[in-house]
Formats: sequence, structure tokens, C-alpha cells
Amino acid sequence: MADPLYRYLEGLNPGSEVLLSRQLHEKLKLAISTGDLKNGTKLPAIRTLASQFGWGRNAVDTAYSWLESDGLVQQFRGKGTFVVGGEADAPTAAGEPGRPHDDRAAISFYASRPSELLFPLDEFRATCREVIDSPEAAHILQLGAPAGYEPLRQSILQVSREQGVAGDNDDVLVTSGCQQGFDLLARVYGSNGETVLIEDPVYPGLRDAFQRAGARVLGLPLGVPLGGERGPMNVAALRRMLEKEHPRLLVLTPSFQNPTGLSLTEEARRKVLDLVAHAARKFGTILVENDLYSLLQYHGAPLARMKAMDRTGQTLLLTSFSKIAFPGLRVGWMIGPRETIARLVEAKYVCDLHTDQLSQAVVLQFARSGRLVAHLNKMVEVCRERLDVCLEACHKEFPAGVEYTIPLGGMNVWVRLPFHLDASVLAVRASNQGVSFMAGKYFAVSRSHKNELRLSFAGLEPEQIRKGIEILGRIFKMEMDAPRNGSRLEPAAAVV
Amino acid sequence: MADPLYRYLEGLNPGSEVLLSRQLHEKLKLAISTGDLKNGTKLPAIRTLASQFGWGRNAVDTAYSWLESDGLVQQFRGKGTFVVGGEADAPTAAGEPGRPHDDRAAISFYASRPSELLFPLDEFRATCREVIDSPEAAHILQLGAPAGYEPLRQSILQVSREQGVAGDNDDVLVTSGCQQGFDLLARVYGSNGETVLIEDPVYPGLRDAFQRAGARVLGLPLGVPLGGERGPMNVAALRRMLEKEHPRLLVLTPSFQNPTGLSLTEEARRKVLDLVAHAARKFGTILVENDLYSLLQYHGAPLARMKAMDRTGQTLLLTSFSKIAFPGLRVGWMIGPRETIARLVEAKYVCDLHTDQLSQAVVLQFARSGRLVAHLNKMVEVCRERLDVCLEACHKEFPAGVEYTIPLGGMNVWVRLPFHLDASVLAVRASNQGVSFMAGKYFAVSRSHKNELRLSFAGLEPEQIRKGIEILGRIFKMEMDAPRNGSRLEPAAAVV
Repeated sequence: MADPLYRYLEGLNPGSEVLLSRQLHEKLKLAISTGDLKNGTKLPAIRTLASQFGWGRNAVDTAYSWLESDGLVQQFRGKGTFVVGGEADAPTAAGEPGRPHDDRAAISFYASRPSELLFPLDEFRATCREVIDSPEAAHILQLGAPAGYEPLRQSILQVSREQGVAGDNDDVLVTSGCQQGFDLLARVYGSNGETVLIEDPVYPGLRDAFQRAGARVLGLPLGVPLGGERGPMNVAALRRMLEKEHPRLLVLTPSFQNPTGLSLTEEARRKVLDLVAHAARKFGTILVENDLYSLLQYHGAPLARMKAMDRTGQTLLLTSFSKIAFPGLRVGWMIGPRETIARLVEAKYVCDLHTDQLSQAVVLQFARSGRLVAHLNKMVEVCRERLDVCLEACHKEFPAGVEYTIPLGGMNVWVRLPFHLDASVLAVRASNQGVSFMAGKYFAVSRSHKNELRLSFAGLEPEQIRKGIEILGRIFKMEMDAPRNGSRLEPAAAVV
Repeated sequence: MADPLYRYLEGLNPGSEVLLSRQLHEKLKLAISTGDLKNGTKLPAIRTLASQFGWGRNAVDTAYSWLESDGLVQQFRGKGTFVVGGEADAPTAAGEPGRPHDDRAAISFYASRPSELLFPLDEFRATCREVIDSPEAAHILQLGAPAGYEPLRQSILQVSREQGVAGDNDDVLVTSGCQQGFDLLARVYGSNGETVLIEDPVYPGLRDAFQRAGARVLGLPLGVPLGGERGPMNVAALRRMLEKEHPRLLVLTPSFQNPTGLSLTEEARRKVLDLVAHAARKFGTILVENDLYSLLQYHGAPLARMKAMDRTGQTLLLTSFSKIAFPGLRVGWMIGPRETIARLVEAKYVCDLHTDQLSQAVVLQFARSGRLVAHLNKMVEVCRERLDVCLEACHKEFPAGVEYTIPLGGMNVWVRLPFHLDASVLAVRASNQGVSFMAGKYFAVSRSHKNELRLSFAGLEPEQIRKGIEILGRIFKMEMDAPRNGSRLEPAAAVV
């Protein structure tokens, strides 16, 4: 076994928020990029590595197959897995500047979430105090209702009615975060192989929920407008897929979609709703609106939610406060027709009885006290600057041939490199220089997105954003200038 | 449509903690028992009732079929559903004493949980304050790890190691309550039609999680020792079923099982573990120990947990604080071999990313501060008296021919009536006299438990327990004395 490998793997934590397969993948990429694992090195057998560390074999298998699709290793039947995309010589001293031995790069465009510095800690403390000192505290300790803490449910319903998002026939289900919303939908509408149409690229948690439940998940090509255009989605593709595939669910993120950052225009929303109304009648298709980012709008006029524009009465809307204020408090909700919500409530009951009540009460009090609006305004101010700085830097630093989206809100910008480049190979080089991002393939549904990547800007200071994108621009340029097959990080010929 | 029905249905709440189908069932039973719905009354069509109230048709359908199996209504093909088990004459004034128009009977043996009066409200407030004032508060707002809040995980692991429950190869996954533990197990080990062996009778949430996931769920007859004996489980039946059915999972509640209240003796634990070790080698069977009630021991010496006695290294243990202190805070956990926990963590991630962090921190601080032990001691004192009073009253009030278990802890006593009686029909009469309980059929897996019922005593004052059991004793006696087919609540002949 390759000894230097141990150093990289000691710190892996199956309990981390990042899946073990992904951690392992990142560490092995790093070990290859630093030259600690050189071409020709044989990796430990999957079974061996798993049992040495007490990990599941699946996690190791997944990490190895990602490395193979990165072009960094190659499996030879009966012989094992060998490093092929690393350096063949020139050992590198650990700790050399610009080569951090940590997967947390100095400038991380990795996670689509606000900076910890923006968390409303004082407001959170004050809100908690109000909740625990109130007579409500006794109710919080009670076993709760599967549909949610009634004062929160009623408050959401009332505000949603005032905004036109909820109609008379609508009801609310409080979920343990948005992810559980997807999971419940997947159980109720996707567990018998039903077809579910989702955007491609898409947030992996959404895709995984439907795939693991057993749905037939199809990716709707987003027709991402790049190079500065702000256009509609690929409505023609949607029409074709609805007619051909008769999906049970169509899941869209009309505002500041993750990972592309793009929104549907009002006209596109209308067109999509017409198609959905038709599909609802013909095939029973239900539209699910993932509304997680819509409050984070930095430019332009806010657009009506599709749920508010919908006339079928069947649309469901999912959201939570986690992107705005409280990622660690798992409170999200769904709004939709009473009958649909009733089915989801029955599923919720089997999942976890009900959502944690302390956090439901805190979230309600945070909104009621006016702190939510105040905090949201602050977030919008701060993130607007970060988006603007990010787009300016992309414009300035990226060489011609690199395209990117121009979002008006949210937390992400989507970048497309020339077709022959592989973003996950570039991710290794970038990490090597202290910058991280998520390669496009993590967001893939039916297409590979090999030459695309996501930049999540909301957690970084403007200066970090400028610096990070400058580094990325240099890497992109160098890679584009290199002869097609001469890049040092592209797969070398087999060495065994 | 039957007009008086409306009065009963107005208050139903699809958002309540009780499933709508169950609420509707209770209300209709009440309406029949009070005489407001008399024999021959036609119930509204399922579709009509569902659409009038905006409920799901499934809920109404389920409630009607429960009523039919109660013998209270009968469906006639092409004609509709008619009341057959109510009164044919003598209308009753609403509000007459002893006929509460509320499904919350005055004396409720219905729910297996502590009285609200026992909730440690002041301690909860103090604990929350300590958590939010600590520097930890900032971490709570962060997106967390799917395996759980690290300080809580480490603390559970350390305590479990000290108790011999966790070995060197074990790890911890924090779940959103025990119910989620069952749900994750069902997803990972039961979703492809695998065989899962559970106790029969059993807590319905456990059964439902595996059944809905698609497992082949088989009930292990408990061989419940009644009439005062404290015996082992039906080990012979377990041996036969392991050999014949090759289950993937065997889920047992060795201490104070819900609903029977019974425990496995140390000898029985040993025998079961020997059988499990054999099945583990031959069929890959994994033992799951539901340890929810073991801290609530009122008599006798505590028994070692099966996880601590197990030598296969494969056993999983599930528990939470919800029965002791915080039903509304959804924090439970599982302890098991690292590889198994890793698989469950991946499933957890897709379910809801991670368990709420505020509540995890509160639960940790409650334990760390010593408040948990103090509160547990108090609970044990109070509940010991309630159990003793309950068993004394059963002894005094129940006629010969009614048997019941003699638990040493937990929250439940299981009662068996003579074979020809139907506990759900008696539940109507009891509710009519202000006492409620859950009929055995709710806990059924492979057997009907028609003549059995559960008394949950922990939430009632001693005086209420005495009074309630006195009333039940009278009802049982009257029913047993009645001519076999002459009971007024048994199904009458068709009236249409």
C-alpha cells in the first residue's frame, strides 16, 4: 500500500456533513495533485481500504469511480487501480506554499450558503430567550403534530394567503428542512418508478431524493443562457418532454436556480404554467416550485411565484429560512392543495412523527418579531455587492471562450469552459492554488456537465472573490492555451 | 346527509398529531355511541365527505373500514354505508353526564407518554439559556453534519462505551427521534422486499415504517405471559421463524415493550442472542434493539442491554429522550457498527440533511448539567406509583377471565379479554363513560389482537387510574355477563 496515502486519509470523518465518498475523492485528488501519489502508484483494494478504516465499501467504490472519470486513475482488470493522471516525477515537499494539504481551500466557492459572519447570532439569542420565557415553552415540550407547530402553520398560511401564494383550498406542512420536502414528495409520488422531471443541472440533494426513492428521474435541459444573456428556459424542450414522458412531477426552481443562478422571466413562467395546466389535465402532472432562493433578489423587480400565478390549483411550493438565516435549524415548509398536503402529512408521520418544535417556535418568533425582515434586508445588501463583484471579476479575468450566467439574485454563478476541458481536473489544479469550486458533474442528471462548474459567492468577502476569480482566470487561460493532449493533469497513457 | 354528523366533524384537524383517519374514526364512533347516528342512518359517500371538508379520500375510506371492522357500520354494494351497531331508538341529549362529546375522554389511557405536568419546564428553560448564551450558539446556526452534532455524538459514544453498550468498532448516528431511526433502517434494509421480523403486537409507528418502505413484515408472536407471570419471550417461535424466514432484520424491544410492557429476562436475552448469532452467520440477520423505555425501570434490578451482551458486533441500538423528558424535541440516536452507521448516515443525508442542531445542543446540555439524571429519578418515582396503582386496580376490578401483564417498568399494561369480546367495540362504550384506551388491533402485525387492549398509565394521576380501571372493570363484567349475541354494541342484523 502507498504509504503517503495514510496522511491524507487519517482526517476523514464519516460523520462530517460532506459524504465520505466525496471527502475521500477530494483527498485522493489532492494526494495525486501534490505528487504524493505519483503515476503508477497502486491504490489499495476497495475492500482493504474500507476495512482498514471501518468505512462502507460503497463509499470507496464511488470515490474510485469518480477518480476514474476524472482521468486520474485507471482500473486494470485483475491488477488493481493505478494513478495515471498525476506527476511521474519531481517529488514535492509537503507544505510548499500554494499547496494546502486541506480540502478547505483558502478561497472556497464550494458551498451555496451564507458566510457564518452573516448569521444573526444576537438576534437568534434574543429570539430564543423570548420563546423559552413565553408560556408557549410548555407546548414545545409536548409531542407535536405531523403537519407542524400550529401557530407556525397558521402564520405561514396567513402570510401566504396575503401574498396570493396560498388559496382557499391550500394547506401547509412544516418539514424538517427543504430536503425533507423533496424526500416526502419522492416517497408519495416517486417510489413506484413514476417519472419525475427535474432541471439539469440541479442541486444534487433534490436529484438524489427522487432517484433513491425509485423514481425514473429525467433531466430537463435548462437551455442556460450564457455570455450575458438573461433568457427564458428551454420551453420547447419542456413541451416535448411533457408530451413524451408524462411525468408525475415537474420540479422547477424558477428564481435563482441552484446551480445556475438563473430565473424564469414572467413570460416564461406563464408559458410553463400553460404547458403544466395541459399536462395536469392529460397526465396528472403536478408542478413543484422550489422557492428556496427567491427572497435573495439583488437586482430587478421581484417576480410573482409560479404557485401564485398557477390556475390548476395543484401546484406545490417548497421553501425554508435555511439559506437566509438558520441553516442549522431544520425548518422548511410546503404549501399546496389540502388533499395533497394530507397525503404528505401521512408520509411525514411515518418518517419522523413531526418537525422539532423548539426550532419551529424560534423560526416563528424570528419572523413575528420583525427580525427576519431586518436580517433579510442586510443579507440582500451584502450579497448584492458580492454578486456584482463576482460578475465584474468574471468579466475581467476569464479568457474569451469561458461563459457564465448573470444571475439577479441567489448564491451561485454557473461557468462553462470550452468543451474539451474537464472542470473536475481543473478543480484539482485550483485546489492546489488555494481555490475550490464544485465541478459540474456533481449537478448532473441526464447530461455530464463535464466542462461546467459552480461558483458560490455568497460566503466570501469581495476581496476574496476578486482574488479567487483572478486565480481561476489564470488557470482557465493556461489550460486553454495548452496543447489539447499535453496538459499535465490529463490522463497519461497506461503505465502498467 | 345525516345532519347531526356535522357537529362531530367540524372540529377535525388534518394538522393534528392524530392522523385524520383516526380522528374521523373516533368521532364517528362517538356519534354512533351517543345515539346521534342511529341504526339505519346512511353515512355520506366517501367522495362526498372528502370533498366537502377538503380531506383525502383515503382518510375517509380508512375510517369507514375501521368502523366496519368495529361492527358499527356496514357497506351494502350499490347502496352505501349504513350504521348498524348503534342504537335504534331513544335519542340522547347532548351533554348528558358520562357522555363527553370529545374524543379526549376524561380519563385517557390512550397515549404512551408522560403527563405534561411532569415535563421539566424550568430545567428546560435553564438549559436553553445556557446553550444560547454559550459560544456554541454560533455553531448551532451552521449547517450541521448528517451523523449529528459532533459534541453530542461524542458524548453519547463516550457514555455508551463506559456502559459497555458501544464497542471500539461502534459509531453513533443522531436521528430526528426514534421514529426516524426505524424509517432509516427500513430504507436501507427493507425497501426491496426484505423480510423484517418484529414483535406482534408492536408499536404501530415501527410496523408502519417497515411496511411502507416495502419490507415483508412478519410478526413474531410474543408469547405474552399474562395472569401475573413474568416469563421469557416465545423463544421457540423465534427459532422457527429465523430458520424459516431468514429475516434481514429482527427488531426487538427487550425492556418494557410497547404495548405489552414486558421485558426479556437475562436468560431469554442470552438465548435470543445465541439464535441471532447463528442467524447472523447463516442469513446475515441483524438485531435491532429498541431501547426507548429501559431507563424507566420501577422494580427489580436493571438488565444489561442486548447490545452490550451481543458478541456478533452487528447489533444496533435505538433510543431517545422523548419518553423521559422532551417529546417535542426530536432527538434520538442509533449506536452500531461503523459500516452500518455509515450506510444509515448516507440515507439520513437524503432524508433531511441532518437533525436540528438547536435541540441537539439542548439535549446534550440537559444531560451534561446533571438535570437529566435528576429528572429521570423523579419520573421513576412518580411512574412507579402509577404502575403499582394500575396493577392493584386491575387485580381488584377486573373480573376473572380478564388477564393482564405485570410490567416492571415503562408506560403500558396489556390486557386480554375473553376471546369472544371485541376490544374496539368496548372502546366505544368506555369512551361513552369517559375512559379511553387503544384497542389491540392498532398494534397488530400478523394476528388480530381483537380481544386485547393497551392501558397507558404514565400520564394519569393515581386517583384517575383507580377510577378509570373501576369503570373498565364494570364494562368488562357487563359485557362478559351478556348473552353472547345480545350485546347492544355488537353488529345488529342488516337494517336495510
